[in-house]
Amino acid sequence: MDKRIGFAGLGLMGQRMALNLLRKGFPLTVWNRTPERCEPLAKEGAAVAKTPRELAERSDVVVACVADPAAVERLVFADDGLLGGVRPGFRYLECSTVSPDTTRRVQAALRERGADALEAPVTGSKNGAANATLLFMTGGDKAVHEELLPVMMAMGTKAIHCGGMGQGSTVKLVGNGVISFMLEALCEGIVLGRKAGVPLETIVEVIQASGYASPYYAFKGAAIAKRDFEEHFAIDLLVKDQTLLLELASSLKSPMPGMAAIREVFQSARARGLGREDICAVVKALETAAGL
Amino acid sequence: MDKRIGFAGLGLMGQRMALNLLRKGFPLTVWNRTPERCEPLAKEGAAVAKTPRELAERSDVVVACVADPAAVERLVFADDGLLGGVRPGFRYLECSTVSPDTTRRVQAALRERGADALEAPVTGSKNGAANATLLFMTGGDKAVHEELLPVMMAMGTKAIHCGGMGQGSTVKLVGNGVISFMLEALCEGIVLGRKAGVPLETIVEVIQASGYASPYYAFKGAAIAKRDFEEHFAIDLLVKDQTLLLELASSLKSPMPGMAAIREVFQSARARGLGREDICAVVKALETAAGL
Amino acid sequence: MDKRIGFAGLGLMGQRMALNLLRKGFPLTVWNRTPERCEPLAKEGAAVAKTPRELAERSDVVVACVADPAAVERLVFADDGLLGGVRPGFRYLECSTVSPDTTRRVQAALRERGADALEAPVTGSKNGAANATLLFMTGGDKAVHEELLPVMMAMGTKAIHCGGMGQGSTVKLVGNGVISFMLEALCEGIVLGRKAGVPLETIVEVIQASGYASPYYAFKGAAIAKRDFEEHFAIDLLVKDQTLLLELASSLKSPMPGMAAIREVFQSARARGLGREDICAVVKALETAAGL
Amino acid sequence: MDKRIGFAGLGLMGQRMALNLLRKGFPLTVWNRTPERCEPLAKEGAAVAKTPRELAERSDVVVACVADPAAVERLVFADDGLLGGVRPGFRYLECSTVSPDTTRRVQAALRERGADALEAPVTGSKNGAANATLLFMTGGDKAVHEELLPVMMAMGTKAIHCGGMGQGSTVKLVGNGVISFMLEALCEGIVLGRKAGVPLETIVEVIQASGYASPYYAFKGAAIAKRDFEEHFAIDLLVKDQTLLLELASSLKSPMPGMAAIREVFQSARARGLGREDICAVVKALETAAGL
Repeated sequence: MDKRIGFAGLGLMGQRMALNLLRKGFPLTVWNRTPERCEPLAKEGAAVAKTPRELAERSDVVVACVADPAAVERLVFADDGLLGGVRPGFRYLECSTVSPDTTRRVQAALRERGADALEAPVTGSKNGAANATLLFMTGGDKAVHEELLPVMMAMGTKAIHCGGMGQGSTVKLVGNGVISFMLEALCEGIVLGRKAGVPLETIVEVIQASGYASPYYAFKGAAIAKRDFEEHFAIDLLVKDQTLLLELASSLKSPMPGMAAIREVFQSARARGLGREDICAVVKALETAAGL
Repeated sequence: MDKRIGFAGLGLMGQRMALNLLRKGFPLTVWNRTPERCEPLAKEGAAVAKTPRELAERSDVVVACVADPAAVERLVFADDGLLGGVRPGFRYLECSTVSPDTTRRVQAALRERGADALEAPVTGSKNGAANATLLFMTGGDKAVHEELLPVMMAMGTKAIHCGGMGQGSTVKLVGNGVISFMLEALCEGIVLGRKAGVPLETIVEVIQASGYASPYYAFKGAAIAKRDFEEHFAIDLLVKDQTLLLELASSLKSPMPGMAAIREVFQSARARGLGREDICAVVKALETAAGL
Repeated sequence: MDKRIGFAGLGLMGQRMALNLLRKGFPLTVWNRTPERCEPLAKEGAAVAKTPRELAERSDVVVACVADPAAVERLVFADDGLLGGVRPGFRYLECSTVSPDTTRRVQAALRERGADALEAPVTGSKNGAANATLLFMTGGDKAVHEELLPVMMAMGTKAIHCGGMGQGSTVKLVGNGVISFMLEALCEGIVLGRKAGVPLETIVEVIQASGYASPYYAFKGAAIAKRDFEEHFAIDLLVKDQTLLLELASSLKSPMPGMAAIREVFQSARARGLGREDICAVVKALETAAGL
Repeated sequence: MDKRIGFAGLGLMGQRMALNLLRKGFPLTVWNRTPERCEPLAKEGAAVAKTPRELAERSDVVVACVADPAAVERLVFADDGLLGGVRPGFRYLECSTVSPDTTRRVQAALRERGADALEAPVTGSKNGAANATLLFMTGGDKAVHEELLPVMMAMGTKAIHCGGMGQGSTVKLVGNGVISFMLEALCEGIVLGRKAGVPLETIVEVIQASGYASPYYAFKGAAIAKRDFEEHFAIDLLVKDQTLLLELASSLKSPMPGMAAIREVFQSARARGLGREDICAVVKALETAAGL
């Protein structure tokens, strides 16, 4: 427990993850692009770094949870970036969902300095971050995975090693693809049901009594029934991941006709100003398309 | 247990369902378009009817499990069809997956003769039919649902009343839509994973450790891993249901962009001669499209 | 010019086509499901039949231009239908856009009575019908094509024999598919252009200066620029044809992923109440999806 | 005619465009990443630069025609890049099809040095490049457009000013989207026709006799009829443009459901090893999907 942890990126997920690290007793320094976000954690006892470079200098391990590949670029490679504070033995735990290309480039830069990185994107959304029940999908050296397991287990309950650097991100993106398909399936069904006079609750009840049941349908079905679209996982972020997934598929020459169609529906939800609402608000885009 | 049951349609599902009725002690008469299929049940003690009309005459309740709306037409409305043998109090239990239009038309014809129908399409595929663990999604009068519950419970474990005639079919079609999305999600992910060097097993492990886990992913993932494409639910039948769903959506003016894209992938699997294989063989169409 | 012509179906297209037959000197009898529609032609000198059967009895050739396969069913096969008035040598010219299955069934019924049919769906929309500049895509015996050429040339300028019965409909449906793709291409481009600050006129100018220019882009681009959505070809009718095309593709196991995606956009336009507007009103569905 | 021209990028298009500049009497220096490609032009009298920087130093105007945004990056911003040779009054004519973001960034860098850029992506493919019949879609200052018109008119017949920097690229990408839709429409129709026994020639004849005719259908229909898939415009390049278009649409929040579906079909063609064939080879991907 004596590893000094730095945490970069105090968004919806990051602030909850950082708080768990603090509560589990890790010495913690935080950094965020907009410094105001550091205050709640500072009150709980975290130190605050002025730059990513300073964050790296003051930590043995930096955990990052930022929005997209551009934010990782800024965090790591900027003039005052993390790389400037890296020295042999330093570890970087990339919990952001970004592209395999990005995580591979970061790892290469760290290794040149005798350090190393592990990618470990998470699933579990806001609640999982708050309750320390996240699942980590890691990519990188198995030894680094083992080394950083205690850090991950302070924030979650399970970490699955998916392979080399990039393969964790790949699995994470596939997973967010699966979520997209499931939500689209539910919402296309709900809208059709509404037109046919079948209540949402009946549709969810039948799904949940079937061999293809999933707690996800109950969770999101209940939110839609209550018209509760408060952000657990924002449409903007899911579309970002769908786009990374389609770019990855394109570079691997792996057609994803279903994913491509579904992304456009979520894009339409963004276009209609729903980007900051929860991903289940995609139902509104489908309702509009159906003239409801 | 003294109701005399007639069973029409002894395909993959029907033969197993009829056998369960027989074993639970119902007096059973069977009919099938190709009469050879009646033999195994005759050996177990079932009587055999020469025509649907005769089947109706010899039964209090006729259970139907045939391939598509055209087969229901033939069964019910042909010159030697079921309608000719219907009298007041007769009951028709439609377990085929057909369109709401079809079940509504059958019900209207039965009611003119003082009889009634309940639609009760099933989910659970071959294994559920064999083990009497099917789920029924019923549409029609609640009283008829109650009346026929013992018959359904001889073949399954649960029956959910979804509303009036047509609404059971609607929910069933939505359910098969959900299956289509989930399988497409899994297979697009598996093919991408293969190109990225991530094993199928890792993808399924991560899905199953996540909040969007479903026994369905484990079941179909294992089959694909073993390249076991033996029919539980044939691609031809699922495409039939996808098509009924899209027709229903079209008549209700309810766009289904995801479903439309996904159906074309399954169509491609049919076009490549995979129509009689299990629905998870859709992975082969995606592999081909990916140049694997 | 001494052939007696019957005309069934006096919609947007039919009334204009019938008028041209009258003006070119053909003795004309008309029938329409709602008889009021016959009045304008009666004033110009057409006789009016009370039933399709009477229409057939009073004509050597009946030309049909009705909305969909169900309307052809009613016209030909109903108790008072055309078939009752058919005798050897009678000719039926099917100008409706329906499925190959439908036209084949009609032809078979006519041939049993020593008569014959030619399918001859048209393109050219309202203006072409008014100006007698329609194009006919025929299917059936070449001899019947030749025999009916003078009738067609009274309403249009060209008739292309596409093959046996069903192949004219196939080509017509493919053609309406092509229209759908072109309009979707134009409208997706226009909406994107609007978001990027590029005027619609610039987009159309560039298209028309390119190797992929088409008078269709100029025609529909100008209508959209003026927000003139008056019906030339209604969205409801095009969606009907898109659906027939996808059903044909499905029965032939020929995947149409582009067409499937595009139909859902037009479906969304219908769902939003635009079914009776011109097909270029699909731009409104895309604008809504884009948050405009 | 005394402007010294530099030409960067001697691919399928570039070599033909550069040759026309030479033949029209412009003093020409060329540069290509793989220097062998410079030889044919050197034989015709062109000078050869060793680096983009040298190319800029020796020219008043540099014309670029390279593959993608990454190649523009290298050309302009590398250590030996064009920027190093730029001085006030220098002009850069970007004929590559890249993203509006890229052309805007290049322009900004040039303006800092008192120079300026015009984007001028072209359409017309290989033949248009050879015959100097290209169409230019320009973005940037109208004055720079006028200034560079003589250079463009040495390679083409028309230049349409679409607006500020980025709007030329936008229109070009929309145009390549339109091409994609038209080709997909034609090929989905041809494959369906083949299954229905309708010859390709009949389909093209009907399209060309209709209001939606386009020389493009005749051109590509003839190539497919002859199974002539020699590159005029390679699938790899069109997919690159489709991807840029979808990225642009995503950043503008403008859904393109048709384009998204169609790109996946072209991706499948790439995955099957057809990336270097002409874009009409997409028909092969559809044939495979249809089991032909």
